[in-house]
Amino acid sequence: MKKHDPQNGLGEFDLINQVFAPLAADSPGAFSLTDDAATINVPEGRELVVTKDAMVSGVHFLETDPPEDVARKLLRVNLSDLAAMGATPSGYLLAAFWPQDMELDWIQAFANGLSKDQQEFSIGLLGGDTVKTPGPLCLSLTAMGDVQKGQALRRNGAVEGDLIAVSGIIGDGALGLKASQDALKGLTASQNQALAARYRLPQPRLRLGQALQSIATSCIDISDGLIADIGHICVQSGVQAVLQSEKIPLSEAAAAALEQDRSLLQVILTGGDDYELAFTFPSERETAVLGLANSSGCGISVIGKIQAGVGVTVIEADGSHVNIDQSGWQHF
Amino acid sequence: MKKHDPQNGLGEFDLINQVFAPLAADSPGAFSLTDDAATINVPEGRELVVTKDAMVSGVHFLETDPPEDVARKLLRVNLSDLAAMGATPSGYLLAAFWPQDMELDWIQAFANGLSKDQQEFSIGLLGGDTVKTPGPLCLSLTAMGDVQKGQALRRNGAVEGDLIAVSGIIGDGALGLKASQDALKGLTASQNQALAARYRLPQPRLRLGQALQSIATSCIDISDGLIADIGHICVQSGVQAVLQSEKIPLSEAAAAALEQDRSLLQVILTGGDDYELAFTFPSERETAVLGLANSSGCGISVIGKIQAGVGVTVIEADGSHVNIDQSGWQHF
Repeated sequence: MKKHDPQNGLGEFDLINQVFAPLAADSPGAFSLTDDAATINVPEGRELVVTKDAMVSGVHFLETDPPEDVARKLLRVNLSDLAAMGATPSGYLLAAFWPQDMELDWIQAFANGLSKDQQEFSIGLLGGDTVKTPGPLCLSLTAMGDVQKGQALRRNGAVEGDLIAVSGIIGDGALGLKASQDALKGLTASQNQALAARYRLPQPRLRLGQALQSIATSCIDISDGLIADIGHICVQSGVQAVLQSEKIPLSEAAAAALEQDRSLLQVILTGGDDYELAFTFPSERETAVLGLANSSGCGISVIGKIQAGVGVTVIEADGSHVNIDQSGWQHF
Repeated sequence: MKKHDPQNGLGEFDLINQVFAPLAADSPGAFSLTDDAATINVPEGRELVVTKDAMVSGVHFLETDPPEDVARKLLRVNLSDLAAMGATPSGYLLAAFWPQDMELDWIQAFANGLSKDQQEFSIGLLGGDTVKTPGPLCLSLTAMGDVQKGQALRRNGAVEGDLIAVSGIIGDGALGLKASQDALKGLTASQNQALAARYRLPQPRLRLGQALQSIATSCIDISDGLIADIGHICVQSGVQAVLQSEKIPLSEAAAAALEQDRSLLQVILTGGDDYELAFTFPSERETAVLGLANSSGCGISVIGKIQAGVGVTVIEADGSHVNIDQSGWQHF
C-alpha cells in the first residue's frame, strides 16, 4: 500500500498502519500492507474472478450517508459482480481519494464498516492506495474471488424457451434513493426507512450465484436496472426477454408506493441499484431453481421467459405491453 | 465493466464499446468487457500478485501533461510495484473518474497511451469502471501479475553485510517535476526536457525484478524517495542502511542541476517518483548482480551496505554524514 499525503495531522503511513492494516490482519498475502503488492494463491482447479467498481460522493451515494454504509455498499456492489459470475470472494483492494477536509473519525467509521462486512463475507483487505483530492470523495474497490475453471456464469448463454428469474425484490434500490430524498408520497415512516435502508445497503447474492453454476444459462446482477440488465443478457445471447410485470417481486413498501403512484413502475423497472441477480435457466429446472431459495437465503421469482427476437418486453396484468427502449419508457 | 453516465453525448456504453473494449481484445478472460467480472487463469506453480495505485490530476500528474503519458504513467507506476515483487505482469483493471467537461478526444488519447504500453509490456485490459465526478480527474489502476509460488520479493529479508543497489538513475523523477515547472536554473533546454520526460514517463524494471528473485534478499520500488523507500526495507528487515552519496547514479542533466545548486541533493535523495528498484543482496553475489545490467536493459549501481542498527545514513564524499529522518533533512 502506498501513502502520499498526510490526513488531519495523521500521516498517511499512520493512517495505513492504524486504520487499514488491521483489516489485512487475516490475509497472509497482504503482508500487513508493508510491501509493494499482495500475493494470492488460487486453489488448484479454480480460476481467479476480478471486478472493479467506482463510486463518487453525491453521485453514487449521498454525502450524508453513514460512513459505515458507504464502505459496505462499495464492497457489496463489487461482491454482487462476483455473485453474478458464481464466484466465491477471497479479498479486495481499496483506492480512496479523500477530500482535503475529510475527518479521521469518518475514515475510521468507514474502516469499521469494511471490517463488519469482512466478517460477514469471510474476506480480507489485500492492499490499495490512499491519496488526497481537491474534489469530492472518490472510491474504487477491486474485489477478487475464484470459481471452478471454465465455470464462471456469463451473460451469453440464454436460449429460446429458458425461464427468467430474479432473486429477492426489485425496485427498492431506486425507490430507496427517492425515499432518502423524501420524494415518495403516502408512505409510513417505517416504509420510507425500509426503502432508504435498501438503497444504502444492498445484499450481494453470493450463495445463490454459486449454486446457479450448474443450472443457469446466463446471469447478471441488477445494477443499471432490471430492464437494462436483462437487456444485456438479450444482446449477449441474441434473444428476446418477455417479462410479466405482476410477477416482479416487490417489497411491501414498494407495493404501497406503487399503489400511490402507478408511474413508479418505471422507476422499479429501470432505476437500478437493486444488486439482485437476474438469470435464465432451462424450464425443466424450475423446481430445482425455486428450491435454491432456502439454501440461498433469498426469495426467487420466475418473472418471464426467453424467446426468439430482440430486446425486452414487459406485459402488464391487463395484457397491455410496456415497451422500454434505450431512449426511455413508453406505454402503448 | 459498468457504465453510469454519458460522456459528451457518447453514452458510457459507447465509451466502453468504442474506446476501451479494443484494449481488452487480446484478454480472453475480459469477455470483451461484456460481463460483470473478468476471469484470470494463474499458471500452475505460480501465484497471483496484485497492486492498486491511485492518481489525481494536479496532485500526481500535471493537468497539462499529455493524456498518453498520464495513461502510461498510471500503468507504469503499478507495473513498477509488480517489478519490485519480481512478478510477470498479466493484465490490469481501470477505474476512471472523468470530470464533467472531459473531452472525448482526451479520453481517446488516454486509451491510445494504454494501448501503446499494453504492447510494450504484453498485457491487456481486463475490466473496470468509468464514472463522472464533479471534481478533478481521478484514476485508479489495478495491475495483476504472477510469480513462482512463495518466491515474491519482499522488503523484510535484508541482513547485515548485504550490499544495497539501485537500478537506472535516481532523482530525475523529482527533478523532472521541477523542470516541468521551470524551477531549475542553469540547465540547457535539452537537459530540462530530458528531466521532464522522465517525470512524465517512468520505466518499470520488470526484467530486473524477475531476475532478482533468486538473488535479492529484499526489494522495493522507489516511489516515495530513495531514503524513505530504503527506510521501508530497514524497518521491515530490522537493519540499518549506509549509503554513499557519490555512488548514487545521476543522469547528466541531474548532475548538471546539482552542480548549479548543491541543495538539490535533498530532492534527489527524498523526492521520489523514480520508479527504479532498490534492493539488497549478499556481497558475494555482486558480480552476478552487476551482470544483470545487460539482460535487464538498465544500469545497476551498488550504493551502500546493510549493517546492524536502524534507519538510513548517507555519507558524502568528504566523509560528512547527511542524516535524514522522518521529519525532514538535516546536514551536520
